[in-house]
Amino acid sequence: MIELNKLTLPEKPVSLTRRQFTQLAATGLATQLLSRALGQSSQKTIGYAMVGLGRISMGHFMPGLKTAKQSTLTGLVSGHRGKAEKQAAEYGVPTTAIYNYENFDSIRDNKQIDAVYIALPNSMHAEYTIRAAKAGKHVLCEKPMATSVDDCKAMIQACRDNNVKLMIAYRCQLEPTNLRAIDLIRSGKLGVIQAIESANGFNIQPGEWRLDKKLAGGGPLMDVGIYSLNACRYLTGEEPQVLFAYSSVIDKDGRFNTVEENVGWTMKFPSGIVASCNTTYGARMEGYYRVHGSKGVLHVEPAFGYQGLHLTAQFNGGENLDEPNPTKDPSQFTAEADYFSDCVLTNKEPKMDGAEGLRDMQYIAEIYKSCGISF
Amino acid sequence: MIELNKLTLPEKPVSLTRRQFTQLAATGLATQLLSRALGQSSQKTIGYAMVGLGRISMGHFMPGLKTAKQSTLTGLVSGHRGKAEKQAAEYGVPTTAIYNYENFDSIRDNKQIDAVYIALPNSMHAEYTIRAAKAGKHVLCEKPMATSVDDCKAMIQACRDNNVKLMIAYRCQLEPTNLRAIDLIRSGKLGVIQAIESANGFNIQPGEWRLDKKLAGGGPLMDVGIYSLNACRYLTGEEPQVLFAYSSVIDKDGRFNTVEENVGWTMKFPSGIVASCNTTYGARMEGYYRVHGSKGVLHVEPAFGYQGLHLTAQFNGGENLDEPNPTKDPSQFTAEADYFSDCVLTNKEPKMDGAEGLRDMQYIAEIYKSCGISF
Repeated sequence: MIELNKLTLPEKPVSLTRRQFTQLAATGLATQLLSRALGQSSQKTIGYAMVGLGRISMGHFMPGLKTAKQSTLTGLVSGHRGKAEKQAAEYGVPTTAIYNYENFDSIRDNKQIDAVYIALPNSMHAEYTIRAAKAGKHVLCEKPMATSVDDCKAMIQACRDNNVKLMIAYRCQLEPTNLRAIDLIRSGKLGVIQAIESANGFNIQPGEWRLDKKLAGGGPLMDVGIYSLNACRYLTGEEPQVLFAYSSVIDKDGRFNTVEENVGWTMKFPSGIVASCNTTYGARMEGYYRVHGSKGVLHVEPAFGYQGLHLTAQFNGGENLDEPNPTKDPSQFTAEADYFSDCVLTNKEPKMDGAEGLRDMQYIAEIYKSCGISF
Repeated sequence: MIELNKLTLPEKPVSLTRRQFTQLAATGLATQLLSRALGQSSQKTIGYAMVGLGRISMGHFMPGLKTAKQSTLTGLVSGHRGKAEKQAAEYGVPTTAIYNYENFDSIRDNKQIDAVYIALPNSMHAEYTIRAAKAGKHVLCEKPMATSVDDCKAMIQACRDNNVKLMIAYRCQLEPTNLRAIDLIRSGKLGVIQAIESANGFNIQPGEWRLDKKLAGGGPLMDVGIYSLNACRYLTGEEPQVLFAYSSVIDKDGRFNTVEENVGWTMKFPSGIVASCNTTYGARMEGYYRVHGSKGVLHVEPAFGYQGLHLTAQFNGGENLDEPNPTKDPSQFTAEADYFSDCVLTNKEPKMDGAEGLRDMQYIAEIYKSCGISF
């Protein structure tokens, strides 16, 4: 049994009790935390430089910026100049705002770049977050935050030291269907919550950087299992007290030479809620969670995708909810960018701050420890 | 971590490898095991005495016998003479075939009674199985088999010693939707199986014998969680190698003074399949399982109910299955009774034999041990 109370967790508002959280949420104070970063209230939009031109940045985040209200694309960082130039043309970014990984630090001198969006392989998150912070830029970093607990701590420290905001791109925490699920739980509509199941995974193609532990830090737990882990935390509003996990590699086809194929884990929360989760890189596994309460059951599936999210619930009185979310990709990325921009513009600490990312990394480290996997 | 390879498991056909099982299943030999019980091939039906007149016997099993082909109701055992007489009249059972718990052993002298169906509180299963065996009657016993591993062993021994068949009422192992799920897995249609989630529970009313550990042996794990445990075994065709569990009591309302309210557990099977399960007595939790394979995902919900079972599957090629099961309660009980009758009449060992019940009890004991609950 992994006793998580021995962990030194970073301070965070979600470490409040559920009652306290509910009270704060009701008064709108839950996420209004003091921040050390300076506000920039005279400015109306935040200019972002993309760091890494891969699927998530080019296919989702950058398209999301097109309809953003407080967020614009003002820079590109890539090892592929040609690719960057093509994107620069499409988005009206001057070629002078194209950087590579060598001259990255000179973004410091570009006043149009207020923030960076880091969408690099996991193992590079820490370096580029820290370099961006030192360049005086706010950092929106993809999850998982990094590939070690120490890296997460260093990222938080660097952003503090340089008075910049740091947000981890847990877009589900801003996403309406997930917020609706949280509300159904916090409002008491589901009664006393007892148990959660969640899973998230997929059958990975060979050759992805995600299968290289040096780049990814780990397997599906790092990449997609983290959604279930994070969901169990935001759904309960609690931090897990104990956890236990098993991992396995079933397919000996070369994909899993350095990372795990499957992880199954069980967590217990201070209130007594038990959560059972799975993740895989070897099977079809649509992301979902199911929350069992004394007054009803809630099921969200897909729960973590870019679109098509769908919430259903059945209550003891016979009432049912069936709420498909009609919003389309990349609206979640638009909202994510604008939320972070608002945090920067109004000097508000993002609810998905560095501490939030660090906590997940601490739990991931414990899950791997429980599996006997070095991390 | 609970290392299950230290358990001395009873010998069972399902301990065969999946390949062996598939081969045997293909030739129809999987369940044709040698039995020490005598065949009664001259007889065409088996007469059952109900032991315990509660919800499952009066509401399901006895109605199921009305349309059975090889099974009839020929006796009643109850502490309530009036209740028994009413049922006797409805089913055409002579009042001379009504017994109580004191004169139970005299069923030995009733040639119309070939077998008993034991639907008593769990803690009484062992005593009445052993007494029935000594009376020369075959035993169909409800799950959980008993409230201790030792009791299960004693039940198996008593039935062996008296040359009677023993079957544990795992009706899902005979049920078409569950068999269809097993077939989709064994046939390779789902590809390589990686992970399973399952849950089964409900929000219990106060006052039930199930809440009294002396009668029930334990909480929801014994009563309903056992369905998920057993399903993970029959779906994989494997025995779990290691497991870990957490339990909790959240509702301090007097219901959970002696038994747990929730259990969440994770198992790993020899092939590497991970399974994450939950059970509860404190929340709405329709029984279900979801099986993730490299070629598709299978979801059965309800999976363990008396009717309304529903199988869906999505395959990578785009093909989907949507198979509601139209059969109505009590057809599963009819099938269960006739299957056991056939085992008796043709001298065939039931696939859900005493060893099957004992194995679940051994795993339940390990789950409770993992939770720190005495069992």
